[in-house]
Amino acid sequence: MTQLEKKRALLLLPNLLGDLPHHEPFLPKSIDKAVKSLDGLIAESETAGRRFLGRFELEKDVRLIPISVYNKDTPDKDIDFLLEPISKNNERWGLISDAGLPCIADPGGKLVYRARRLGIPIQAFVGPSSIYLSLMLSGLQGQKFCFHGYLPFEKNFKIQAIKNLEKKALDNSETQIFIETGFRNNDLLQDLIATLSETTLLSIMWDISLPNQGGGTYTVAEWKASPLPNLHKRFAIFLVGKPW
Amino acid sequence: MTQLEKKRALLLLPNLLGDLPHHEPFLPKSIDKAVKSLDGLIAESETAGRRFLGRFELEKDVRLIPISVYNKDTPDKDIDFLLEPISKNNERWGLISDAGLPCIADPGGKLVYRARRLGIPIQAFVGPSSIYLSLMLSGLQGQKFCFHGYLPFEKNFKIQAIKNLEKKALDNSETQIFIETGFRNNDLLQDLIATLSETTLLSIMWDISLPNQGGGTYTVAEWKASPLPNLHKRFAIFLVGKPW
Repeated sequence: MTQLEKKRALLLLPNLLGDLPHHEPFLPKSIDKAVKSLDGLIAESETAGRRFLGRFELEKDVRLIPISVYNKDTPDKDIDFLLEPISKNNERWGLISDAGLPCIADPGGKLVYRARRLGIPIQAFVGPSSIYLSLMLSGLQGQKFCFHGYLPFEKNFKIQAIKNLEKKALDNSETQIFIETGFRNNDLLQDLIATLSETTLLSIMWDISLPNQGGGTYTVAEWKASPLPNLHKRFAIFLVGKPW
Repeated sequence: MTQLEKKRALLLLPNLLGDLPHHEPFLPKSIDKAVKSLDGLIAESETAGRRFLGRFELEKDVRLIPISVYNKDTPDKDIDFLLEPISKNNERWGLISDAGLPCIADPGGKLVYRARRLGIPIQAFVGPSSIYLSLMLSGLQGQKFCFHGYLPFEKNFKIQAIKNLEKKALDNSETQIFIETGFRNNDLLQDLIATLSETTLLSIMWDISLPNQGGGTYTVAEWKASPLPNLHKRFAIFLVGKPW
C-alpha cells in the first residue's frame, strides 16, 4: 500500500442491490482494494456494515473494524462526531448504504457535504444503482430524467403527482422515475394504470440484478390488456416516459 | 461458456469516462466476460468501438468483430437493421456510448426500446456515470434529483432555465444536474454565479475519474468570493441544490 493510499479520506462505496453470494459481477476490483484500506465504516446499521465487510478478504479481523451508524434517524449534531476519526485522526473510513450507491436515493448527502466543509478528501466508487440500471433497461429517454423518490401516500395527492409527472414526461421528454414501499407497489401500479394516458409509456423493473429480475416497458393500453405483474414486496422501480 | 451465456442478447455495456490506460478500477469483472461473448458491437463511432474492444483480452481477433454505428444522426429506420444480427441470427451484441453508461445522457434509449419490442433479451452492466459519481461527490441532496442535459444556448432562455431550476431545487429539495459543451463551461459558470441566490449551493465536478479530477460544493456567495476554476474544454457537471 502506497503512502498516498493511506491518506485520510471518506470513501463512498457501493453496496449490492440484494443478498447475493458474489460481489465480483457488480463491484470493480478497486472496491476490494479500497475496503482493505479502511480503518472504519459508516453504514445504515451495524448488521448491514458487518455483512458488507464480510464479503471481502481483509488483512485484519473484520470484528476489529469499527462500524458507526448513520441513517435517516441520525441527528445532524452527530455528523461531526462520526467524521472525527477522519478529520482528527487522519483515518480512512467508508460510507455505504443498505443497497446501491450511498447518497443516491439513500442517506449520506449531508454527511458528505459536512466532510467537504471539513476539508476531508472524498472518493466515489463505481457500483450498481437500481435507478440507472432500470433507466438503461427501460428503453425510455435517458437524455433527461428526474428521480422523485416516493410519491405522496395520500390517494388524492398521489393521483395529482402522477398527473404532474406525466405532464413533465410528455412536455419535456423527461423520463420520470419513482419508487414505492414493497407492500404498496400493486396499489401504485393500479393508480398508474388508471391515471396515465393510454399512449404513455410505463416501464416497471423489479429485483434488478437479483435472480428474479424482471420488467417491461409498454404503453398503458398494453399494460391494461394483459395480466399485471404481482409486485407485492418486490423492489420495483417505476418509470414514465414519452412515446418515442 | 455455458449455453445460457451464448443466448442472443443486447448487452448494455459501460465505457470509461476518458482515455485511461486501465479499465479494472471502473468496470466489474463481469464486463470482461461479457465482452468476450460478443458477436458484434454497436458504438457511437467505429473508432470508439475499436478502442473499447482493444481494452479486453479477447479470444478472437478484435478486427473480426463487426462494429455498427449508432449515434444521434442515425435515422430511426436503421434501428431494426442494426438489431437484425440479434433478432434474426440469435447473436450477442453489445451497445456502448462514447463515455459512461449507454442510454444515460447518451444515445441508446430508442434502440433499447425497439429491442424490447422485438423481444430481444437485454442485460445492463454496472459502470461509471459522471452524473452519479458527481451527485455522490457533491454532498447535495440525492433523494430527489433531475438531470437536464444541456441548458438552452440562447442567453435569455438560459438565464430563465437557471431561475426555473433553482426554484425546483429550493422548493422541492431536488438537486438539479446539467452539463455544457466544454468551450462554453466558463460562460455558464458566470451566468450561474450571476443568476443564482447567494445562499444556493452550487457544485461543480470536473474530469470525474480522470487524473485531473476536481470540484467543489459552495454557496454562490462563496464561489463569488474566490477565483473561479477554469473549466474551459474540461468535462464538467454542474449541480444546484438547496442548502442543508
